[in-house]
Amino acid sequence: MINLMKNSKLNKSIGIIGGGQLGQMLTQAALPLGFDVTVLDPQAGSPAYLAGADQIVGDYNEASITKLAAQSDYLTTEFEEGLDTDLLSKISSSSKLNPAPKTIALILDKVIQKNYLKAKGVAMGQYTSFETHHQAGQLLKDYGGKMLIKTRRGGYDGYGNRLVDNRASLDKALSDFAGQPVYAEAFVPFIKELAVMAVRDLDGAIITYPVVETIQKNNICHEVLAPAQVDYETMQRATDLALKVAGAFDGAGAFGIEMFLTQTNELYLNEVAPRVHNSGHYSIEACVTSQFENHIRAISGRPIGSSAMKVPFAVMINILGERNGPAELKAVTEVESDEQTYVHIYGKSQTRIGRKMGHITATGISLNEAKARAEDALKEIYI
Amino acid sequence: MINLMKNSKLNKSIGIIGGGQLGQMLTQAALPLGFDVTVLDPQAGSPAYLAGADQIVGDYNEASITKLAAQSDYLTTEFEEGLDTDLLSKISSSSKLNPAPKTIALILDKVIQKNYLKAKGVAMGQYTSFETHHQAGQLLKDYGGKMLIKTRRGGYDGYGNRLVDNRASLDKALSDFAGQPVYAEAFVPFIKELAVMAVRDLDGAIITYPVVETIQKNNICHEVLAPAQVDYETMQRATDLALKVAGAFDGAGAFGIEMFLTQTNELYLNEVAPRVHNSGHYSIEACVTSQFENHIRAISGRPIGSSAMKVPFAVMINILGERNGPAELKAVTEVESDEQTYVHIYGKSQTRIGRKMGHITATGISLNEAKARAEDALKEIYI
Repeated sequence: MINLMKNSKLNKSIGIIGGGQLGQMLTQAALPLGFDVTVLDPQAGSPAYLAGADQIVGDYNEASITKLAAQSDYLTTEFEEGLDTDLLSKISSSSKLNPAPKTIALILDKVIQKNYLKAKGVAMGQYTSFETHHQAGQLLKDYGGKMLIKTRRGGYDGYGNRLVDNRASLDKALSDFAGQPVYAEAFVPFIKELAVMAVRDLDGAIITYPVVETIQKNNICHEVLAPAQVDYETMQRATDLALKVAGAFDGAGAFGIEMFLTQTNELYLNEVAPRVHNSGHYSIEACVTSQFENHIRAISGRPIGSSAMKVPFAVMINILGERNGPAELKAVTEVESDEQTYVHIYGKSQTRIGRKMGHITATGISLNEAKARAEDALKEIYI
Repeated sequence: MINLMKNSKLNKSIGIIGGGQLGQMLTQAALPLGFDVTVLDPQAGSPAYLAGADQIVGDYNEASITKLAAQSDYLTTEFEEGLDTDLLSKISSSSKLNPAPKTIALILDKVIQKNYLKAKGVAMGQYTSFETHHQAGQLLKDYGGKMLIKTRRGGYDGYGNRLVDNRASLDKALSDFAGQPVYAEAFVPFIKELAVMAVRDLDGAIITYPVVETIQKNNICHEVLAPAQVDYETMQRATDLALKVAGAFDGAGAFGIEMFLTQTNELYLNEVAPRVHNSGHYSIEACVTSQFENHIRAISGRPIGSSAMKVPFAVMINILGERNGPAELKAVTEVESDEQTYVHIYGKSQTRIGRKMGHITATGISLNEAKARAEDALKEIYI
């Protein structure tokens, strides 16, 4: 590990499209490696800025992205939704921008993503795009009376995502998403949701992180348990699935691969994100090299570090907004003296119900111990 | 551990007098805790600035220090030499400035330091201040023909420090230090030099770090071995000595306590520094909480973290300038892929023979392994 300060001749600059919490944690990983970091974000005082990045305050338009690209040795993004991949291809050679614009294009639209990966032999549940209300009604029958209606683009943290199991809920979903392209996914009866982070270097070599279990609440990632409590053979299969998915795309950087462990013990891909991911936050304290540091290393051509866990168990819990308004953090000194509890508060100035305001990672010699520690800490925090 | 971003209502600002490598590593510890950091340093683009601190570019005079104090919730210093302790007492209540001005005043002048600690029962070698050349010659005889001439103030890294063992070297030392108050220290025949970091909180509770061995080359700290290879009883005595020394002073913060293990198995105090210290750099990677983080926690009234080692062994080696001129770092990629080698380059723009330009900490399952790793890494770096 190198902690190089900025005026060394080896130093390079990283540009990040987006200055939210992912940009923030990327910044915190990149600065000690000696990089200058600049983020582009429309909101002044973004979380990444608060962590020490310079910021271009601006919309994600051609002028701003071009400006960021021009001053960056390496360009990356903390999100993909809404990005103009033609523009990205135009302003940047793919060796400079990672994830590759082509990869972003393939992942952005979930139907294109699924078609692409299905053709590569990746196992997944049934899904169909449809045009008419009538077709949707037929699909609900075909899929056994329970399915998800999802927007093809822009879904995250429960947005763009409805579970429907009768005519009324189907009508509601279609009306909510009127005007947006949607598709249907058969509901996969699963025992657990698993996730694996993979990081691919500029030469295409891929490393994976431990398999974790993710627990969702209201369609938002609530808790991540590391490592997942599944047998060795399932871990192997989950890792293989992640390698297959990450290997299907061009370009360097992190990939978050979410999957279902079905009641029949099959592993189905759920979704893939071409970036650092909420399911990998635990790696900051629990792994030799965090997903954020390895993403930075990967896109800048530096050697990728070990992803092995350096503690027996870790549990990550998101700190979600519980009201709407200016964020005001209550005292957290109770938590502070615990050496195995790590609280991250992203510094967002406005809170909103369900908004990701921070997260807690707790480590321990058993999963229960780590979980109890994280949950106890969460009780001390209100934001 | 709390990683609080800046716009939280809990946030406070830290002011550091001095923006060198100690200020830099204090900054790197303080930023993730959510503090705003400003350093005062005459040289623009100081190492601390490069690590993300704001900087007041200015001399260490009344106007600049007053300005820094006025905007800081907590004020500290990375050095003590040359500070006007009357000024410090005037501009800051002791609860805000740590180390306490009174502590700095007692430590600055080494004869005052030794007199003060000797009166508290701290064991140390013989020393005498003297006025005349003739007295010095007599002392050299009294001390068995080998002693150190040291300046009472301003000595560090071999400056202000001469070993004399005959008339000629004595004459040379006295002529070199002409006009500066000096004193003589009997040479202590030692087996090892040991050091212990102690951190005292605002309530006066003191924690100590593991006992380490320091190896000097040309009067500059070259290597630190953690933990020191001494028996348990010696460790206990060294820890007790450190507690006694740190307990003798007012105020919160880190103390670096250097001592000699004599040929007769006694422990003598060598020197104390009222701040983070080169002998504690290993703690960044090797201890649960680094000396830098604990100093920040201590002076800001936060709970002090565990100082326990989290790896079996660690070796720190300083990276010293090997020539004079603009610093230009050669590639260090060889080192980068080693997960147990941590290279810190402070980012000083000018190098100078013997100047501290960075340091390496290597960890391992044996001291030899860690030492080999650190020494191999040093060969890859030229600055």
